[in-house]
Amino acid sequence: RERTRAFLANRRFQQFIIGVILINAATLGLETFPAVVESHGHLLTVVDHVALYIFVVELLAKVYVERSEFLRDPWNIFDTLIVAIALAPATGGLSVLRSLRILRALRLLSVVPSLRRVVSALLRAMPGMSSIVVLLSLVLYVAAVMATKLYGQAAPDRFGSLPTSLFTLYQTMTGDDWGNIARDVMDEHPTAWIFFTIFILVCTFVVLNLFLAVVVSAMDE
Amino acid sequence: RERTRAFLANRRFQQFIIGVILINAATLGLETFPAVVESHGHLLTVVDHVALYIFVVELLAKVYVERSEFLRDPWNIFDTLIVAIALAPATGGLSVLRSLRILRALRLLSVVPSLRRVVSALLRAMPGMSSIVVLLSLVLYVAAVMATKLYGQAAPDRFGSLPTSLFTLYQTMTGDDWGNIARDVMDEHPTAWIFFTIFILVCTFVVLNLFLAVVVSAMDE
Amino acid sequence: RERTRAFLANRRFQQFIIGVILINAATLGLETFPAVVESHGHLLTVVDHVALYIFVVELLAKVYVERSEFLRDPWNIFDTLIVAIALAPATGGLSVLRSLRILRALRLLSVVPSLRRVVSALLRAMPGMSSIVVLLSLVLYVAAVMATKLYGQAAPDRFGSLPTSLFTLYQTMTGDDWGNIARDVMDEHPTAWIFFTIFILVCTFVVLNLFLAVVVSAMDE
Amino acid sequence: RERTRAFLANRRFQQFIIGVILINAATLGLETFPAVVESHGHLLTVVDHVALYIFVVELLAKVYVERSEFLRDPWNIFDTLIVAIALAPATGGLSVLRSLRILRALRLLSVVPSLRRVVSALLRAMPGMSSIVVLLSLVLYVAAVMATKLYGQAAPDRFGSLPTSLFTLYQTMTGDDWGNIARDVMDEHPTAWIFFTIFILVCTFVVLNLFLAVVVSAMDE
Ligand code: NA
Ligand code: NA
Repeated sequence: RERTRAFLANRRFQQFIIGVILINAATLGLETFPAVVESHGHLLTVVDHVALYIFVVELLAKVYVERSEFLRDPWNIFDTLIVAIALAPATGGLSVLRSLRILRALRLLSVVPSLRRVVSALLRAMPGMSSIVVLLSLVLYVAAVMATKLYGQAAPDRFGSLPTSLFTLYQTMTGDDWGNIARDVMDEHPTAWIFFTIFILVCTFVVLNLFLAVVVSAMDE
Repeated sequence: RERTRAFLANRRFQQFIIGVILINAATLGLETFPAVVESHGHLLTVVDHVALYIFVVELLAKVYVERSEFLRDPWNIFDTLIVAIALAPATGGLSVLRSLRILRALRLLSVVPSLRRVVSALLRAMPGMSSIVVLLSLVLYVAAVMATKLYGQAAPDRFGSLPTSLFTLYQTMTGDDWGNIARDVMDEHPTAWIFFTIFILVCTFVVLNLFLAVVVSAMDE
Repeated sequence: RERTRAFLANRRFQQFIIGVILINAATLGLETFPAVVESHGHLLTVVDHVALYIFVVELLAKVYVERSEFLRDPWNIFDTLIVAIALAPATGGLSVLRSLRILRALRLLSVVPSLRRVVSALLRAMPGMSSIVVLLSLVLYVAAVMATKLYGQAAPDRFGSLPTSLFTLYQTMTGDDWGNIARDVMDEHPTAWIFFTIFILVCTFVVLNLFLAVVVSAMDE
Repeated sequence: RERTRAFLANRRFQQFIIGVILINAATLGLETFPAVVESHGHLLTVVDHVALYIFVVELLAKVYVERSEFLRDPWNIFDTLIVAIALAPATGGLSVLRSLRILRALRLLSVVPSLRRVVSALLRAMPGMSSIVVLLSLVLYVAAVMATKLYGQAAPDRFGSLPTSLFTLYQTMTGDDWGNIARDVMDEHPTAWIFFTIFILVCTFVVLNLFLAVVVSAMDE
């Protein structure tokens, strides 16, 4: 067991795994080119299966080494989920699951130390943002219910139902094409500019402060 | 009176109120689905009335407990206004007022401590921004009067009247679709690019500094 | 002369001037409504002339008081230019100059102390940005010359001449509608995505650093 | 050799070089105006050749002075590359290479001290960003492979092939027109909003942290 641990921790082995991930990411990318699939489809499938086989063996070796500690490291759970997705289509065959195989490339995040550090830093920044994200979601929900009731009939494409309104207002929040959306509604409801102006001001203001909270907490560290 | 105060401050009671707000927010959201209204419309109305009843009783209990101090806490005024809006449609029936009932979900901001803290922080950041907001409004007003006079006839959809120009320039300020707006005007006034370029540069510069003012004052704390 | 100086520095007098500026800004705004011009056009013209008369007298009084020091304060030059613009249309009558009369509202910036402070702070931030602004302009110019040569014939509306390219790339720099612009060009030049991707990356990177330079220098103060 | 070194370091000489760069940038800009080329085309070509001749002589003088140290300064390599590009079209004649001659204007970056400092600062900020740029590229690649597989048939214009998807998602990442792109896909795949919402949230979050990393490291200096 100690020998397996040493083998897994060996730098050469980790570079080998990084290589497998990169090659697999490349073959999954090549699979999107119909011409390549026609000429080398079989080769791509073989590489894909070999890579998957290596990942499974690596994970099993880790389980053997770390035993009950395996599930304590969230990165291991992340790796297991990604490989599990990759195994699913082999039995099922749903196109959505097949397309999720490319998520395996994200294993780079857990294997390359510098990426691992960046992602960990990102995740650590999350709790400090949670209150403001809840606030933004609340503002979005309230605005979507109002917009559906007020403008649902005037602009059914944009505000016809609650999910549609949520999407349209999320788009508005990112500033994309909101002028045209507002103009569409204003044709029938000339006072709609009040709704959009307040919504954008509130969102900008909250996002600005979300940003500030993150800057200030980053400074404290 | 002390018993009422203790009851209101009880953590269980506050969790109950949060639950009522969440359920009420959900039913108001469900009201936007015609199918749900047809099948369970009566239930939604009942839940809505019960929730409103609970909010009114809670507010009256608070008035009883805090008496003249009730109006000193701006959160109480906020809660009262929101409940008052909710009562209005019962007598009136205007569709705008009915759609404002969802604002009750914003009571979460005053009841959940972490949200309350975030909103308080946002509001405290406001005074530091007031001068720059006045400056931006002044720039917007001056530019809108100029654009109405200069481009009102060339692009009546965009700059036909002062309110239209204010809306178009607010949109331009957020960077949304300004290229197409400017091109429309430039068909007739080839020098309009000067107006738009200066307007965007000034707005970007002022917003950048607004942002800076907030960052620096946040640092000082 | 001392009495005039005291009179100009009097707080009441400054509030009176602020009032005149606000009323004048309002009448110039009302002038954009044809209905108002038809019914009260004469009144608006009279208010406009009286306001202008007051500004001229105020400026002359300042010249009388401060004499050779008058031109040392850039705010005085700013006020003089704005009033001079206002006088010009009286003799000339060009519509552009008439529309510039609303710039008089910007006199608020020199008269209201808090706005005056904000604008001074903005202007003080400018020198620290000059190098990066020159850099951005250089990038814009080089990209515009290249785009005109490369894509001028494929997309004459966007890159037909150097000024057109400068406008289109300025728009691209602000992120507005650049995807559609690039797609138009890519119909004929499939490799144009290289140009646009590099241009946007460079601009984003430079603007990010412009921003940083300003934040850091603001911190130092 | 010492006299050449002194001559090159002379401030007058450097101002002369800056002048030549500016004049050359102007003539290359004028070359994009067909009318100017028709009337003064010969003059523009002569100025262009003289400027190129001066740059080549300057570089050779520098090589003579600095000898083996010449290649140690990256700015010298930058200058050599730019001049080499300028020489290429004289022999070849490819329109792309001809359009690259304007890159000579970028020599200002190496000659003007304040610009040189700004660019050096920008380049020094790059290593701190590399991990996050790799992360963003990985996210972009994974999302593009998925989008090509899932939405390639529904929206071939946007996601028909891997390069097309990469371009579309890069555009989405900058927030340009993503609402319309998503709506196009959602006509056939109603659940596509999940893909776009997650993609935008992840990108915004990573870019926000990229920004933070740069701010914090700038502060440390
Ligand atoms: Na946009
Ligand atoms: Na847009």
